[in-house]
Amino acid sequence: MNYSQVTSCICIPKAILLQPKTNWTSSKPGNERRAGHWTHVPRNVNMEGLRSGYLFPEISIREHEHIQKNPNARLIRLGIGDTTQPIPDIITTAMAEHADALSTTRGYRGYGAEQGNMELRMAIAETLYRGTGVKGNEIFVSDGAQCDISRLQMLLGSNVKVAVQDPSFPAYIDTSVIVGQSGKLEDKTGKYSDIVYMNCGAENNFFPDLSTTPRTDIIFFCSPNNPTGSAASWQQLEQLVDFAKRNGSIIVYDSAYAAYISDESPRSIFEIPGAKEVAIEISSFSKFAGFTGVRLGWTVVPEELKYSNGFPVIEDFNRIVCTCFNGASNIVQAGGLACLSRDGYQAVCNVVDYYKENAKILVEAFASLGLKVYGGKNAPYVWVHFPGMSSWNVFNEILEKTHVVTVPGRGFGPGGEEYIRVSAFSHRENMMEASLRMKKLFR
Amino acid sequence: MNYSQVTSCICIPKAILLQPKTNWTSSKPGNERRAGHWTHVPRNVNMEGLRSGYLFPEISIREHEHIQKNPNARLIRLGIGDTTQPIPDIITTAMAEHADALSTTRGYRGYGAEQGNMELRMAIAETLYRGTGVKGNEIFVSDGAQCDISRLQMLLGSNVKVAVQDPSFPAYIDTSVIVGQSGKLEDKTGKYSDIVYMNCGAENNFFPDLSTTPRTDIIFFCSPNNPTGSAASWQQLEQLVDFAKRNGSIIVYDSAYAAYISDESPRSIFEIPGAKEVAIEISSFSKFAGFTGVRLGWTVVPEELKYSNGFPVIEDFNRIVCTCFNGASNIVQAGGLACLSRDGYQAVCNVVDYYKENAKILVEAFASLGLKVYGGKNAPYVWVHFPGMSSWNVFNEILEKTHVVTVPGRGFGPGGEEYIRVSAFSHRENMMEASLRMKKLFR
Repeated sequence: MNYSQVTSCICIPKAILLQPKTNWTSSKPGNERRAGHWTHVPRNVNMEGLRSGYLFPEISIREHEHIQKNPNARLIRLGIGDTTQPIPDIITTAMAEHADALSTTRGYRGYGAEQGNMELRMAIAETLYRGTGVKGNEIFVSDGAQCDISRLQMLLGSNVKVAVQDPSFPAYIDTSVIVGQSGKLEDKTGKYSDIVYMNCGAENNFFPDLSTTPRTDIIFFCSPNNPTGSAASWQQLEQLVDFAKRNGSIIVYDSAYAAYISDESPRSIFEIPGAKEVAIEISSFSKFAGFTGVRLGWTVVPEELKYSNGFPVIEDFNRIVCTCFNGASNIVQAGGLACLSRDGYQAVCNVVDYYKENAKILVEAFASLGLKVYGGKNAPYVWVHFPGMSSWNVFNEILEKTHVVTVPGRGFGPGGEEYIRVSAFSHRENMMEASLRMKKLFR
Repeated sequence: MNYSQVTSCICIPKAILLQPKTNWTSSKPGNERRAGHWTHVPRNVNMEGLRSGYLFPEISIREHEHIQKNPNARLIRLGIGDTTQPIPDIITTAMAEHADALSTTRGYRGYGAEQGNMELRMAIAETLYRGTGVKGNEIFVSDGAQCDISRLQMLLGSNVKVAVQDPSFPAYIDTSVIVGQSGKLEDKTGKYSDIVYMNCGAENNFFPDLSTTPRTDIIFFCSPNNPTGSAASWQQLEQLVDFAKRNGSIIVYDSAYAAYISDESPRSIFEIPGAKEVAIEISSFSKFAGFTGVRLGWTVVPEELKYSNGFPVIEDFNRIVCTCFNGASNIVQAGGLACLSRDGYQAVCNVVDYYKENAKILVEAFASLGLKVYGGKNAPYVWVHFPGMSSWNVFNEILEKTHVVTVPGRGFGPGGEEYIRVSAFSHRENMMEASLRMKKLFR
């Protein structure tokens, strides 16, 4: 695979671009001729430590090959969790009006606060954190959760020890590798030597056994979980906060899927008393309001959270935000504010309900085949167990025989083996059709 | 100063929030009561190395104090370079239409490519890099130059040696400190021990003496320069590229003000033959199209640029962009594309011309007072010399006697002493009024 071909071809799914080219020294003849000059700048050793066979690119390659082999097949993509439903027009109208106003003397705005417009920060606090004690000035508006994960890693630096759920969303580990926290990738286990992997499988109800979990500085914890779809209960989060407090750890809590919670599970770590002393929360408008391409998120850093020397974490995070970021787009922030208005909030909840109904259809389809199915109730992801089987083999079989793209659980870490993740982000007719195909394949 | 008061008060200029609170252990009584729990997570030593008395916060504090003392004065802010003129409606309409379309099944878009829409990448290549050999796939669209500087620093890591112009835009050094490249701040010189400061003053025509400049891995170089307003000539940039090539260095070229060039100076480092083997270019729509609050920029990483082991830098940067970023807002990218249409480009150039006329007014005002004035011709900043005087004293005198906010040159590094920077980003009437007040003060 040739890098320049990949990046200049817009028809190939974006994720393919993630993959470093392994045969880079022997590629294009044209490049070789020009490649006479090498600088003396050393490649960052941390970058060398990143896995070369990354999950989503590998899926995209297989998807691409499948399309080549089956040009007439109607592919259904339930792999990457990408929203598909239109944004309610009360929200798009707010953004369009803000954009239009920028052409007027009265409506023009230059730089905003790096931390976000205070009106939006207050609205997030009042709408999504009511009763938790989280205040507007503790909310930092961003261009998305993934971006904030890397800014948090810049904040923390290389000298902290990190734990992640296994399986987990790859960005926690990858950014950990980039800033130099991870140690080496061990071929045998598929794990980085200095990262603690907290197994979260069906056997422990997708919640780590904290009695055997070693102390780390940082605990990345995603609930509702990507990929397992499991939401931690109030009691489980209480245990987690207690564990962090006893160990002097900081929980980095990812609540990007909180809007999908249907039961009594907390939607924020800050519903747990004492969490403000031990946790940071990262969240997003992406899956909550269909803002995957619009880009808006936020991070909560409580004033109570202190480093080991008593210095408030919020002050360093504020400095990072002001130095490494320059605020989310003012047009997009106007949309975020509209999402939190009474009518806007109702409208986005209706879209979330649509995806939740999709998830229900997937759960029923797989369950009807006698398979163990997890997730889907509190999350837009369904996590299906194929005991004793390789998740890549299951992925391949489903792709080949049904033309449905899923994600092999192994891609989220060793703990995802034997599982596949199926996304509920799609149009309803795709969901029905995919369910039918699955039933034909596995019946 | 109390952090929570600052961040919850939107009337205080944003930059004030940059300043770490120095007396944080003895602040709010309420906080002290709650501050029972300190985690055991060490504060990142790099964050401790950041200057506490940062430029813009200090200015904001003085501005704030001045307003308190002079509540009836009409303050004119020519400090922070923030655009003030409306965005041409051909561009805002494109953004509004894109936003509106997101509420339709046909127009909805989820995740885009992390690198940006290929149509926009191609348009940047064709409009702004014609004839340089820069291709669309070498352009990475971002949410702004400042954000890309920090992503580049994540890419480079702690094990590189860095040179900056002195004076220079503070973000290069601050991000260098955050990733651990800088060494310690030396009180005596005001310089970080491991950073090379390349003096750029009137005596060397604002271009460093490369014959005495030690080799570094990275050379941050901003042209047209912020703060001096000086644009490097073709011959100077040819020298710089040659210097980088001989030393095996990488130039990180910041061309955020390229649209302001009036003479024959290159608008991109890639106009210089051979630059693709030694340079990365960071640029922005902020000052070019009034997108300071809208947020859009780009970085060019040529395929020819290689690390010391021959590995292409573009592949690692691509990985960083895909892991630490998730693409610029699709609404905003639609605006960027409109800026590069024939009519859009003409419209934004007209706004640039407006600010250039402002700069001319400033240059004439200061020159008429017998002061040495630099910049203004190829940049929206005017750099005024007050020989033998402290730049902070000049700043204070101007503020107190004319109610005009400028920036003391010392804030951009030791090499900025004796100078002030005056921004041309303002309404015309402010420019005229500020000129009048200066003439009264210094005549």
